[in-house]
This record gives sequence, C-alpha cells and structure tokens, in this order.
Amino acid sequence: MEIKNNIHPIFDRLLQREDREKRLEQRAKVFWLTGLSGSGKSTIAQGLERKLYNAGFFAQVLDGDNIRSGINNNLGFTIEDRKENIRRIAEVAKLYLNSGIVTLNSFISPTLEIRDFAREIVGANDFIEVYINTPIEICEKRDVKGLYKKARSGQIKGFTGIDSPYEAPFNPDFEIKTNDMTIEESVDQLYNFVISKIRI
Amino acid sequence: MEIKNNIHPIFDRLLQREDREKRLEQRAKVFWLTGLSGSGKSTIAQGLERKLYNAGFFAQVLDGDNIRSGINNNLGFTIEDRKENIRRIAEVAKLYLNSGIVTLNSFISPTLEIRDFAREIVGANDFIEVYINTPIEICEKRDVKGLYKKARSGQIKGFTGIDSPYEAPFNPDFEIKTNDMTIEESVDQLYNFVISKIRI
Repeated sequence: MEIKNNIHPIFDRLLQREDREKRLEQRAKVFWLTGLSGSGKSTIAQGLERKLYNAGFFAQVLDGDNIRSGINNNLGFTIEDRKENIRRIAEVAKLYLNSGIVTLNSFISPTLEIRDFAREIVGANDFIEVYINTPIEICEKRDVKGLYKKARSGQIKGFTGIDSPYEAPFNPDFEIKTNDMTIEESVDQLYNFVISKIRI
Repeated sequence: MEIKNNIHPIFDRLLQREDREKRLEQRAKVFWLTGLSGSGKSTIAQGLERKLYNAGFFAQVLDGDNIRSGINNNLGFTIEDRKENIRRIAEVAKLYLNSGIVTLNSFISPTLEIRDFAREIVGANDFIEVYINTPIEICEKRDVKGLYKKARSGQIKGFTGIDSPYEAPFNPDFEIKTNDMTIEESVDQLYNFVISKIRI
C-alpha cells in the first residue's frame, strides 16, 4: 500500500518472515500432529512446546483448547464445519508461519483429504506431518475425556475410530508409536526431529 | 489435559503468556487502529512494525492483506459477514496476545458497536484503541485504491464515509491527526505511545 501526497514511504522494506526468523533464531514450520482422540497429541505438543522454549526456540501449540473455544467457537461437527474448522486452523498456522513462529498443531484431522487440504493452505514446503500412532485399544482404555464411552453407547455420533474412519498417513514425515514409551520419550523423539527442521 | 497409565505429566507447568512475554522482553497488547479507508492506518502500522522490530520488540500487523486473503477469504460484506470478519480478527489477535506478541490491527471497523465487540473478545485490559484521524476530504483526494471514486459513482455500495457511516471513537486511547504530518511523524508519535504500553 502506497500513500502519495504528504506521505512518503521511505521506510525500510516491509518486515518479512525472514527478518522474524532471524530475530527468533529459528526456521518457522508447521508441525501437524494427527492421531486418534486420546493418542496423546496435545500432551506431546505441550511438552514439546515447553522443551523448545527452554532451549530458546519459539513455538505455539494450536489445539482444541485455544481454537475451538475461540476462532472456531461458531462451528459444529457437520462435514462442512469440520472442513471449515481445519481451514481456519491452517490459515492461523500460516499467519504464525509468516510471523516466524513454529506451530505445533494438534488435531485429529482424520482423513487424507482433510490433511491434504491443510497442507495446501500452509504450503507443502512448510507443512510437516507427524503421526501420533497409538492403537485405538489404548486410546479407548485411557478414555481421558470419557468420549469413547459416550461413542460406544451412542451418545456421540460420528466419533473417529468408532463409527467414523481414521485414515492413518501413508507416509508421514515423522511417526511416534507411543505405546510402550513414556510421554518424555515421545517428546524427546519428536524434539530431535523438530530441531533438525527448525535449527538455522 | 492429563493422560494416565503409562504417561506421566512430569513436565513443568504449561507454557504461559508471561513466559513468552519474558522471552520477547515485552508486554503483549492489541493495538486496534481504526479510521477511514485511505487514512493511512496500514502504512502507519507497517512503519511501526518495522520500527518496533528494529528496537528489539516483536509485533505483527494484522490487516486486509493477510486476513482477507486468508482466514477471512470466505466472507463478503453483508452485515453478518462484517461482524464475523471482526470477530475472527479479534480472535486471531487474542491468540497472538497469548503468544506474547504485540499486534497492530489495521481495520476500518467503522462503528462503536463493532469495536466494542472486538474489545470484548480481546479483553478490555489488552485492547488499546488508536484513532487514525484523517479528514475524509484528504482520504478521498488520495484515493490510493480508487475506491472513493467507485463509491461516488455507485459502483461500490455501503462504502464507509460515503454511503455508510463512520463513527469516530469518543475517547480513544490514542489519536493521530495525520493531516499536516509526515508518515514518519505519525509513526514516531504512535511508537512512543506503544512503547509506553509494552515496555517491561
């Protein structure tokens, strides 16, 4: 935007993503954690966020807690709304990306199509797919939020893994098999991978 | 979110806004620049963003360029869509706020009601209203994007200041009368105010 007459754009060029990455001493990327409800996505993302912070990086978890309660609080669970949910998340991640910030996106995002949609918005070069691979038996046994029980009893319809499909990534950029690992081990594994992608 | 069984939440507490503000050495705030089309909002915001960066702060401009082309690209200009436009912008600003980042929001946001709505979402303590006060005659004379001409000729309907009202803030936190000032002077004035709010 250029304003003429009494206003002269003599500033340095507009601030770019590269400037911000330089300031934060990192390369910005979108890490997209996909997996079943209860697979540990958000717990891993939050542990990783803290570990990255402690190491001097700057990352932001985007998950149901800060997205569904805010920008997506007017969306339901119809097919259209689920798609719009993912679209907005991907657009928010893209804004953060252009701000030089690493995002850790923790969303079930159950289908290949919906993840391709997110990848397209973010840009393939910056979108890194991480599969949090936890067997459904484990997720259901944990049932932290009591959602599997509700899905089994029919109180919730279209629940991923019960009466709605989860399509695992064919070729994720990184995969964590959380079974038989502590959360610390999962975070450490992912941390090492993330660092290799964001370190300048 | 707590996961039981083989996973133990022994990490430090979740990363907080305060941690991020400490890392960025600033207090996060949302500066909401309101004013007519062509008033210089975005130019001032962009100059300010660069000046803050050069001084070691971390701010992000949110404006039509990165919002209307992305997260709000499925919104039109009906009354409902204009409200949803502002709602999403305020929610994005709130996410950045919780990431410890200063945002410089540059949107006409023509009515008291719509700005109150934004303030409510962001939270009154963090919402700082800045009125970019440029007389409509000046804005129309500049007509950088040719929009006033189109509005006058009836090609655009409901254009703020022509056939749709602009309600100036009664009591903005800061006001810049851009007339008879260079853009540099406007940016410098606002910079000094912003610094007083974000400096730790």
